[in-house]
Amino acid sequence: MDGQGKEGGGAGSEYEVVARAFVDYYYQTFDTNRAALAALYGNTSMLSFEGHLVAGAEGIGLKLAQLPFEQCRHSICTIDCQPTPSFPGGILVFVSGNLQLGGEEHQLRFSQMFQLVPNQQGSFFVQNDIFRLNYG
Amino acid sequence: MDGQGKEGGGAGSEYEVVARAFVDYYYQTFDTNRAALAALYGNTSMLSFEGHLVAGAEGIGLKLAQLPFEQCRHSICTIDCQPTPSFPGGILVFVSGNLQLGGEEHQLRFSQMFQLVPNQQGSFFVQNDIFRLNYG
Repeated sequence: MDGQGKEGGGAGSEYEVVARAFVDYYYQTFDTNRAALAALYGNTSMLSFEGHLVAGAEGIGLKLAQLPFEQCRHSICTIDCQPTPSFPGGILVFVSGNLQLGGEEHQLRFSQMFQLVPNQQGSFFVQNDIFRLNYG
Repeated sequence: MDGQGKEGGGAGSEYEVVARAFVDYYYQTFDTNRAALAALYGNTSMLSFEGHLVAGAEGIGLKLAQLPFEQCRHSICTIDCQPTPSFPGGILVFVSGNLQLGGEEHQLRFSQMFQLVPNQQGSFFVQNDIFRLNYG
């Protein structure tokens, strides 16, 4: 896995630890218990999945549940993250990787970004989520 | 160019107009007058370029100027954008496309995300910028 470079710092900082833990949890949960992902979103959350925009935890959970595949396995190639200083505590996470669908021979390359925002329980929820397959 | 879907709205909304105008300007400027890009960033801005993190408009301008190629041409495939309701006026922009370097036969696939934040002049600056090439 290729992470942040040392240039300008950032490697090992608190927001990076949170981002990496989130990425581990998110894709493991996606691949083993996709229905549990809805709990990561809130009422104000937005998901753009291949250009389709869905808002709110309930709608996002429904969208994820209805994706036209059952089994899948994500493997992560890169994780980049940045804090959002103008919005204390927020973290931007940018992921690239491969997605293997059950019964398919070839892997699909994808990129995805998240904005994580602190919640009142001292944890984070996904405020923004944008997913794209990388064709061509 | 493949934009946002109609699901959940968003097509043609104000933040989307800003995002598209920004994307047009950013890549046209990158390809024709790269030095002018530094003006889009502020003192708190961060750029992650292929895993290397740089902070501040000056450092980012230097990084962009020192990229190891002269001529390049971006062609945009998809633009996704979302507002950041928890931070009024902020816009997340997620771009995928191809990058043709001068003298190279093959195009490189890339993904890039920006967080645009309003400035005091009624315009926007790039608070966060993460760029990755999408290898095989």
